[in-house]
Amino acid sequence: MNNYVKTRAYAAFDESGILKPWTFERRTVGDNDILIEIKFASICHSDIHQEKGHWGKQQYPQVPGHEIVGVVTAIGKNVTKFKVSDRAGVGCMVDGCTTCEEEQYEDGTKFTYGYSDEREPTKITQGGYSTHIVVNNHFAVHIPDNLSFEKAAPLLCAGITTYSPIMKAKIKKGDKVAVAGIGGLGHMAVKLAVSKGAEVYAFTTSADKVEDIKAFGAKEVIVVDNKEKFLAYQGQMDYMISTIPYQFDVASYASVVKPYGFFTQVGMPENFQITLNNLGLSVSRVNFNASLIGGMKETQEMIDYCAKNNVLPEIQIIKADEINQAWKNVENKKARYRYVIDVATI
Amino acid sequence: MNNYVKTRAYAAFDESGILKPWTFERRTVGDNDILIEIKFASICHSDIHQEKGHWGKQQYPQVPGHEIVGVVTAIGKNVTKFKVSDRAGVGCMVDGCTTCEEEQYEDGTKFTYGYSDEREPTKITQGGYSTHIVVNNHFAVHIPDNLSFEKAAPLLCAGITTYSPIMKAKIKKGDKVAVAGIGGLGHMAVKLAVSKGAEVYAFTTSADKVEDIKAFGAKEVIVVDNKEKFLAYQGQMDYMISTIPYQFDVASYASVVKPYGFFTQVGMPENFQITLNNLGLSVSRVNFNASLIGGMKETQEMIDYCAKNNVLPEIQIIKADEINQAWKNVENKKARYRYVIDVATI
Repeated sequence: MNNYVKTRAYAAFDESGILKPWTFERRTVGDNDILIEIKFASICHSDIHQEKGHWGKQQYPQVPGHEIVGVVTAIGKNVTKFKVSDRAGVGCMVDGCTTCEEEQYEDGTKFTYGYSDEREPTKITQGGYSTHIVVNNHFAVHIPDNLSFEKAAPLLCAGITTYSPIMKAKIKKGDKVAVAGIGGLGHMAVKLAVSKGAEVYAFTTSADKVEDIKAFGAKEVIVVDNKEKFLAYQGQMDYMISTIPYQFDVASYASVVKPYGFFTQVGMPENFQITLNNLGLSVSRVNFNASLIGGMKETQEMIDYCAKNNVLPEIQIIKADEINQAWKNVENKKARYRYVIDVATI
Repeated sequence: MNNYVKTRAYAAFDESGILKPWTFERRTVGDNDILIEIKFASICHSDIHQEKGHWGKQQYPQVPGHEIVGVVTAIGKNVTKFKVSDRAGVGCMVDGCTTCEEEQYEDGTKFTYGYSDEREPTKITQGGYSTHIVVNNHFAVHIPDNLSFEKAAPLLCAGITTYSPIMKAKIKKGDKVAVAGIGGLGHMAVKLAVSKGAEVYAFTTSADKVEDIKAFGAKEVIVVDNKEKFLAYQGQMDYMISTIPYQFDVASYASVVKPYGFFTQVGMPENFQITLNNLGLSVSRVNFNASLIGGMKETQEMIDYCAKNNVLPEIQIIKADEINQAWKNVENKKARYRYVIDVATI
């Protein structure tokens, strides 16, 4: 437990977006830490944005991955929340405030990869495309026994990122909820809103996703091939969430929400920049807000909710040597709907 | 009353931002119209944006001006709301829906200048830097006797544009309200929020406005010369309104608002485009919305409120031949705080 933890991984070495095998050391397990032997890690569009430098310059080698599940194999002396052999999940955060409700918004939060951390031999946090991870136990959640590792992994980001704003929106049975961008996050948003009894209207640019999305429970699927498509839904939705991870015409999408309703943006585009038409937004009278992920208490609640209500991602399990192709597919909107890496193949 | 109304004006002839004298004809007074002999018209930054083509291509000659007051000199046969010799004001709208609450957001609303209108000899609506105007009587308001024409004029846009969102924000005595951009609109926002009992925090880039703004009743004036200035106020404001009419760092400004609070943008920048940092907005958890002007019923209510509570603009009366210099001063943040044109000098 006092040795550095040798870890095999797939890492980015530059902004090319190409990952290669790499072996590195994790920090020793501290008093509040747990060591997890990772079983599965899934691929989020954010991994690609960050490693390609779309959100700012990065230090390399850097291991992406913030949808992580596995088995606890060591615990620090202060840890009571987990015991060895527990099933555990880690999302976008690995350390920070342990007493607040919304850890993700606190100063000093350490995100799962690419964040400065002097305790790590590599001096930055390293993510989940790897065989092991050491995290502060506060930032790990329990995975219920009735939930498979591979289906649990995407919940750690795609699940909580959509669950948090959808729950805050206090959706009632029969409310009309619009979801824009039906990828890894968006398909979870559809399923979560359906699980709350909403009538879900899904807006996608991929015509070949229509049947899938209806099977997820959406009432209508609108293929956005021109702006006119929004007119038929103008001012009708009680709430809208967008997972689109690049610039898009916010005001046109938001126009489908009822006046004085809310629109939440969870996709994070290049440089985090969103350009919107202020006149269009004034006409719709819609409140635009952004949401990052969710707090740890909320993440556990989400995992339990999804397991209990069978709100689970559509996944494709891949081997480590398929990661690079999978990234291309995510960028080309070909993922259906989350790639999950079998870490045993790293 | 059945003759075209000959009107002297100052008009833009191209995108240069230079206005010149022009004489043109208004339409005849229709059954629902009133003819107003204009006494004063004031200068809004929007006049400059529109005539310079910042919001899209324009038809010229075009007369700007949507803060208009004068005396009714003729009425159509259906008009009962006004009689000849009444004092009247016109803002940003001259025709459209006459039964709804928020006329400004309806399809078919005709804005005061540069809008297609086949009834006008010039085929577009022409604004208030002119001696006469013909408008649908629904889109004119009464000016109370205790309110001077020259102080009333800026209320028709600067007043209602800030009054409407401030009243919707349901500010209570002692609430902390931030105002960003202290020009024609911003100084009215400060005074209106103060009149509701708010503690007002004014954010300006003009150090030489500090004493003025304190005299308007602001509790604190923050000169924004670097981003660090926002840190001391992070998450403290109950509400924020921005009148800044160009691109700015929305997320940094919004960071002073309490989590889950509201931020309203009323300034309309070039091409109506606002670029914001979605990560920054997620961290602040602030709801960003935009507001245009206000409805006609609300505009009358605002005029009456301002007259009763002595919430009035700071003005400088100018002659017509000073308009071009005044526009330059507005662009250079030299207006203190609204230029009002004495229309008798046109």
